[in-house]
Amino acid sequence: MRGKVYLIGAGPGDPELLTLKAARLLAGAEVVLHDALVHPEVLALAVKAELIPVGKRCGAHSTAQRFINKRLVDAARDHRVVIRLKGGDPMLFGRAHEEIEFLVGKGIAVQVVPGVTAAFAASADLGVSLTQRGKARSVAFVTPRVGKGMPESSWIRAALAADTVAIYMGAGEAEVIAKALLAAGKPASTPVAIVENASTPELRIDYATLAGLAQVRPGSGPALILLGEVYADAVEAAGRLARSASHAA
Amino acid sequence: MRGKVYLIGAGPGDPELLTLKAARLLAGAEVVLHDALVHPEVLALAVKAELIPVGKRCGAHSTAQRFINKRLVDAARDHRVVIRLKGGDPMLFGRAHEEIEFLVGKGIAVQVVPGVTAAFAASADLGVSLTQRGKARSVAFVTPRVGKGMPESSWIRAALAADTVAIYMGAGEAEVIAKALLAAGKPASTPVAIVENASTPELRIDYATLAGLAQVRPGSGPALILLGEVYADAVEAAGRLARSASHAA
Repeated sequence: MRGKVYLIGAGPGDPELLTLKAARLLAGAEVVLHDALVHPEVLALAVKAELIPVGKRCGAHSTAQRFINKRLVDAARDHRVVIRLKGGDPMLFGRAHEEIEFLVGKGIAVQVVPGVTAAFAASADLGVSLTQRGKARSVAFVTPRVGKGMPESSWIRAALAADTVAIYMGAGEAEVIAKALLAAGKPASTPVAIVENASTPELRIDYATLAGLAQVRPGSGPALILLGEVYADAVEAAGRLARSASHAA
Repeated sequence: MRGKVYLIGAGPGDPELLTLKAARLLAGAEVVLHDALVHPEVLALAVKAELIPVGKRCGAHSTAQRFINKRLVDAARDHRVVIRLKGGDPMLFGRAHEEIEFLVGKGIAVQVVPGVTAAFAASADLGVSLTQRGKARSVAFVTPRVGKGMPESSWIRAALAADTVAIYMGAGEAEVIAKALLAAGKPASTPVAIVENASTPELRIDYATLAGLAQVRPGSGPALILLGEVYADAVEAAGRLARSASHAA
């Protein structure tokens, strides 16, 4: 055992949103196990590394996680610098905990390098701050994906209580999410922004209210659902634009 | 009007946690207005820029904000690349919204470059993920700092509902925060980690329960209070360590 494993956040999509530290470590890496959505330009920084895709896009199977854990331990046995590269930040919905626990249990040194999360990139693309003085001073990051041992509704409580809400890994289930939030008492008029492929040239933004969220059909890229009064102006402006376009037609 | 203003996140402290994009833009900047806590090595990247400190450490006065807004507009009148450099990510507790609104109102182009926030850096330092399968799938980022037009308690609701909570700009008021959360029904046994100077050599970590939070005395650096069951193991281990040390003494 001589290797160290770095759990590194690759950021939200734009390869330039990688940190300097991640770039430096990648340049010296011998093995890189990476998620499916990491940009090829980021992987290209690992000039001397063996690249191992371990992509779990959505529906992360626990078999896959066990396989990744084993590959990391094997790599750390044979190599000095092993990198586990994850989209966004490793410590938010990244299952980093399972990998850290497994590696530490095997006596392998682990270091985490934080990254830029999708909600910050989406906020930059929207030009709308997650928090605003006098309007929003709490933000909830939630995911509707079920993990064993938690009640189905645990994410809903946080989404109801916070001023602004960022829903990760939920765009494919927009209808279910909208229904659940409406049933729990979130107002139908809550402004919503759906941001797909944040920070990339394939960026797509849709605006809606919670009542209309089920009708939004994002593409196949990773998407984030943002809710809260901070998006009211943008949703209203988008509605005005749509109305004036339909009058002109 | 020929300049563009970039609102850029400088990250949590470690200058290597700057993004590649921020580093590139700083190298070409003509004017940089920066927060007090931005690392000198980050500022040194702005090789040809006039550096203007506009630091508001805690207690952000609205006079100061008006002054910053005006300086940004003046700079954009005379220069092509103007950077407003903020600690962490600009769109989370950064008052970016006020600057964007003011600049856009003056017809000045604005681009936001996201950054790594303190909660991710603190999680990396702790080695504990904010979310964990089956244990935590919601995270609330809150601040107890008062903004006009919001009830004092609005942050408390989010802090009660989320599985994991990161309290920004609250370390100087730990006693008030602990009292407010306890009064609102957060269990006294809730595990707490207080992370000061995350991602820097001056890192300091304290563990407590919510009942003991009022007794924690962090230093003068920026600190984050993290709460939730994900910290239970670390708090327990710290307690064991303290007990065995006092037995040995």
